Amino acid sequence: MSGDQKVRAALIVIGNEILSGRTQDANIVHIAKELNGVGVTLSEVRVIPDIEAEIIETVNALRARYTYVFTTGGIGPTHDDITAECVAKAFDLPLIRNHEAVGLIEKRAKERGVELNESRLRMANTPEGATLIYNSISGAPGFKIGNVYVMAGVPSVMRVMLEEVKPELEGGEPTLSRAVTSQAPEGLMAEGLGLIQDDYPDMDIGSYPFYRPDGLFGTTIVMRHADAAQLDKAAEEVAALMRENGGKPEFRDTADD
Amino acid sequence: MSGDQKVRAALIVIGNEILSGRTQDANIVHIAKELNGVGVTLSEVRVIPDIEAEIIETVNALRARYTYVFTTGGIGPTHDDITAECVAKAFDLPLIRNHEAVGLIEKRAKERGVELNESRLRMANTPEGATLIYNSISGAPGFKIGNVYVMAGVPSVMRVMLEEVKPELEGGEPTLSRAVTSQAPEGLMAEGLGLIQDDYPDMDIGSYPFYRPDGLFGTTIVMRHADAAQLDKAAEEVAALMRENGGKPEFRDTADD
Repeated sequence: MSGDQKVRAALIVIGNEILSGRTQDANIVHIAKELNGVGVTLSEVRVIPDIEAEIIETVNALRARYTYVFTTGGIGPTHDDITAECVAKAFDLPLIRNHEAVGLIEKRAKERGVELNESRLRMANTPEGATLIYNSISGAPGFKIGNVYVMAGVPSVMRVMLEEVKPELEGGEPTLSRAVTSQAPEGLMAEGLGLIQDDYPDMDIGSYPFYRPDGLFGTTIVMRHADAAQLDKAAEEVAALMRENGGKPEFRDTADD
Repeated sequence: MSGDQKVRAALIVIGNEILSGRTQDANIVHIAKELNGVGVTLSEVRVIPDIEAEIIETVNALRARYTYVFTTGGIGPTHDDITAECVAKAFDLPLIRNHEAVGLIEKRAKERGVELNESRLRMANTPEGATLIYNSISGAPGFKIGNVYVMAGVPSVMRVMLEEVKPELEGGEPTLSRAVTSQAPEGLMAEGLGLIQDDYPDMDIGSYPFYRPDGLFGTTIVMRHADAAQLDKAAEEVAALMRENGGKPEFRDTADD
């Protein structure tokens, strides 16, 4: 369903807190939308634990496959923060103490009046040749090496790092979307929807049924493509299909809801 | 950090709606917690698009590696619902029309007074030899083949399917957890925390800093292990470390927050 000119990215979420169910992930949606906005398609997400072999294997599998790879998590000062050394090993590069990062961490420690200890200085370790991703919130930077962008897992910190990174990403045309919702049941529209998909072979057309606690059910059809005119035409055809099947279609220009 | 006797599972989230940022995932946390409760550790999550080759490759990679694999999404009646045929191909089994599933879908169509068309009957297709996972909400079942459990993506439907599946899962000892939170900075506790981890080598000890919009910052330490007494002892040591570093520790018996 997807065109082949897309610029594709993967996200690696590193950390036991998502896999244990402790933490509701808040980063995937944000990163997906921000990447969409600069014409980069998030094509795969892997959530993996703080285990060295798994991080190395995953980084290497995905950096070979995608234009950009983003990681979140595991760059703090504690024993479970092993992302920097694992990424260095994945690239077969030495882990060095980055002098610019030391300066940033020293400055922040002075401002906050906290001790500059070895644990905090560990956050200045990067693979040799990495460039820093600045972080105005907690001071300790992320870094970029090759096509891999290593960011914090704390959502507020990740967001400022992603803002630093976005201007340098070279995306394709941004993907636009349209959503049409009605109470027409998915099972009645399926055949017609397949025919619309056949007419727009490179459009991503998804069908999402909903069942609300009040007993209301229906279907949202989401169309994604770079061309607004094509999207509007397809959305009208979907709306007509909904009307044929007893629905009163409501349009939304973006697929956010 | 993790013991080797754990029963491990992976989750494959199939669907463009998470990757596009349209939908905030609500299934990972729920499945992680429910599996924890029956002694199964969620060890990896992959979010992948509705693309046949990717689904087949991912199912085969993960079913070889984990005791249980769960999938969510892609089992409805529309053209973008391709999970059943992909799982059949992954197992190299024919896709058949499951007679029991046809009966369930016919029954629900009669109850709702909707047409029983070919699109709806597609939801009765399973790999040959699959057993059904019942679904009291929308009628159309999921299925199990080998160690792979194929469930719906709609959270309310996924939840009733997971309830059907849980009694047959053979887990290890449930993983218990303790969380201790204070304003002691992660960077001051990191060395002491590493020493505590050394004393409890098979305990999963995670450090999670927080930065709140009101300027409050601090750290939550989460400990996960099967033995409550060990957890309580480690939690007291973490609390002492926090007090040494200016924090007033607060305990929680579960890591949920």
